[in-house]
Amino acid sequence: MRIDALQYCNYSEKIFRQWREAQLDAVHVTIAYHENFREMVANLEAWNRHFERFPELIFKGTTATDVDLAHASGKTAVFFGFQNPSPIEDDIGLVEIVHQLGVRFMQLTYNNQSLLASGCYEPVDAGISRMGKEVIAEMNRVGLVVDMSHSGDRSTIEAAEISSRPIVVTHANPHEWHPALRNKREEVLRAVFNSGGMIGFSLYPHHLKDKSDCTLDSFCRMVADTAHKYGIEHIGIGSDLCQDQPDSVVEWMRVGRWTKQIDFGEGSKAAPGFPDQPDWFADSRGFNDLAAGLSAVGFSDADVGLVLGDNWHRFFRDNFCAIG
Amino acid sequence: MRIDALQYCNYSEKIFRQWREAQLDAVHVTIAYHENFREMVANLEAWNRHFERFPELIFKGTTATDVDLAHASGKTAVFFGFQNPSPIEDDIGLVEIVHQLGVRFMQLTYNNQSLLASGCYEPVDAGISRMGKEVIAEMNRVGLVVDMSHSGDRSTIEAAEISSRPIVVTHANPHEWHPALRNKREEVLRAVFNSGGMIGFSLYPHHLKDKSDCTLDSFCRMVADTAHKYGIEHIGIGSDLCQDQPDSVVEWMRVGRWTKQIDFGEGSKAAPGFPDQPDWFADSRGFNDLAAGLSAVGFSDADVGLVLGDNWHRFFRDNFCAIG
Repeated sequence: MRIDALQYCNYSEKIFRQWREAQLDAVHVTIAYHENFREMVANLEAWNRHFERFPELIFKGTTATDVDLAHASGKTAVFFGFQNPSPIEDDIGLVEIVHQLGVRFMQLTYNNQSLLASGCYEPVDAGISRMGKEVIAEMNRVGLVVDMSHSGDRSTIEAAEISSRPIVVTHANPHEWHPALRNKREEVLRAVFNSGGMIGFSLYPHHLKDKSDCTLDSFCRMVADTAHKYGIEHIGIGSDLCQDQPDSVVEWMRVGRWTKQIDFGEGSKAAPGFPDQPDWFADSRGFNDLAAGLSAVGFSDADVGLVLGDNWHRFFRDNFCAIG
Repeated sequence: MRIDALQYCNYSEKIFRQWREAQLDAVHVTIAYHENFREMVANLEAWNRHFERFPELIFKGTTATDVDLAHASGKTAVFFGFQNPSPIEDDIGLVEIVHQLGVRFMQLTYNNQSLLASGCYEPVDAGISRMGKEVIAEMNRVGLVVDMSHSGDRSTIEAAEISSRPIVVTHANPHEWHPALRNKREEVLRAVFNSGGMIGFSLYPHHLKDKSDCTLDSFCRMVADTAHKYGIEHIGIGSDLCQDQPDSVVEWMRVGRWTKQIDFGEGSKAAPGFPDQPDWFADSRGFNDLAAGLSAVGFSDADVGLVLGDNWHRFFRDNFCAIG
């Protein structure tokens, strides 16, 4: 199985066909950054139109069985997630509603403090809030996975302790490989993995050593080192691919409606837009390069399979259903 | 099988236990009169809390198979519907979204003109609107049933012609038995039945001959006459039971937010509240009286079964799934 645990592209038939060339059986796509519930539903509607237009390429995925079905039928199952809890507003009842609508991952924060936790850009991280504890319990109950990719360290470690089910970081890399604000320190990774959770390695240039110039070999050696240090069962890919998006989209991701200023996030005033992808991961077909690159640094075929999707497949099977 | 194709009660454990005493395998409950999308979702959330609290009595139903499951497990499957298209707002994409949330019936109007059609209280009924035609096609595609219980005659007849799948009147009676505004004339019933559709007979006193004093015998003879005239396969029950509701609720049903005046609907200034139910249908357990009453007017056991639920069960099987 091949699974990309995070993309946010400007989707089109071209991209769906690239998914097939990449042999991607499943992709977790972001459908909300700052959207409220009703705005997120409009994004679901847009996906329903994609499913109606391209039934030979994609369908909506909600269970691990859908990944098998995709594999058997030569299609890609699309799983939904939020990078921010904004779509549940201040209403815990929306946790089950969004799960019923097919959402399977929700970040408790996106860079900033939320109603639930704190983001990795906040100067102070107070950990999981009162509502955060309630929402984690409800997410655990219905089978909505806690994703801490953009959260602060303390919030992430506390979430791992509070959650009765594994939590994840769908898209980031180890801080020791590349000390970006968004990459995760050892104590954070240990907390996530001790919960039974996973990390999806990011191909977003700001998360890569040498950024756009990162080599496939360097990336694959980082994967090997992480597997060696923490156990291969905890790792997969979450490419964070933002293909074909205009730069206005990265501004929406960073700024939303929370400031009247421009916040450059991981970018800068000199380079405010999306950075260039490394040439070996310009689009989803980079999964084919990753397979070759992982083999070249010594992974067996079975282990390449684990990293490129089988681990996520197992995780989906164990974590998308209601308890009991 | 026993199915009530329309209720709008103030639900509680008491009522769910009465459903079990009535041997109701399924109930179609109204979850919107004038609610917009977000308000309707709050009503879904309240139902999720009922399902969480009373799993031994009720569960959410979305397919005919759920009715079988309910029957086998001694529970009641709850199906959702709207008496007004207000929850889809002006957005055709919400048709599929509400179906994905489990909604299976939608009235195109509730007494008044809507974006889609005209209601039975309007002086002029212009038939199905431009958006109405689009929405009917989308409802047909996804498996959301067109319900014309509160619509005007012309709108109903046109909807039956335009819809590629059967349309229904979930709760009303024949006008010739009791000439209430909400009861349906022969040409309307013929249009609904020619589409392959059904009527659910109402136990709401304003729809009954002699209203609250209607006798079980009179009601059952009306059922027999209708079966004889149009064919038993087209008939079921849609009690319109509004049990334990305060009168503020009937005001919301009639007035919503569309007027600053009070509209008494089927009531009057002298009797603005909910009317008293006939003593043989004070609550859902009236289904047991109906079974006896139908036998008494000559229905075979098999035909009693058809009227009290088997016809609706067949209808659910054929009409709740997407085409193709």
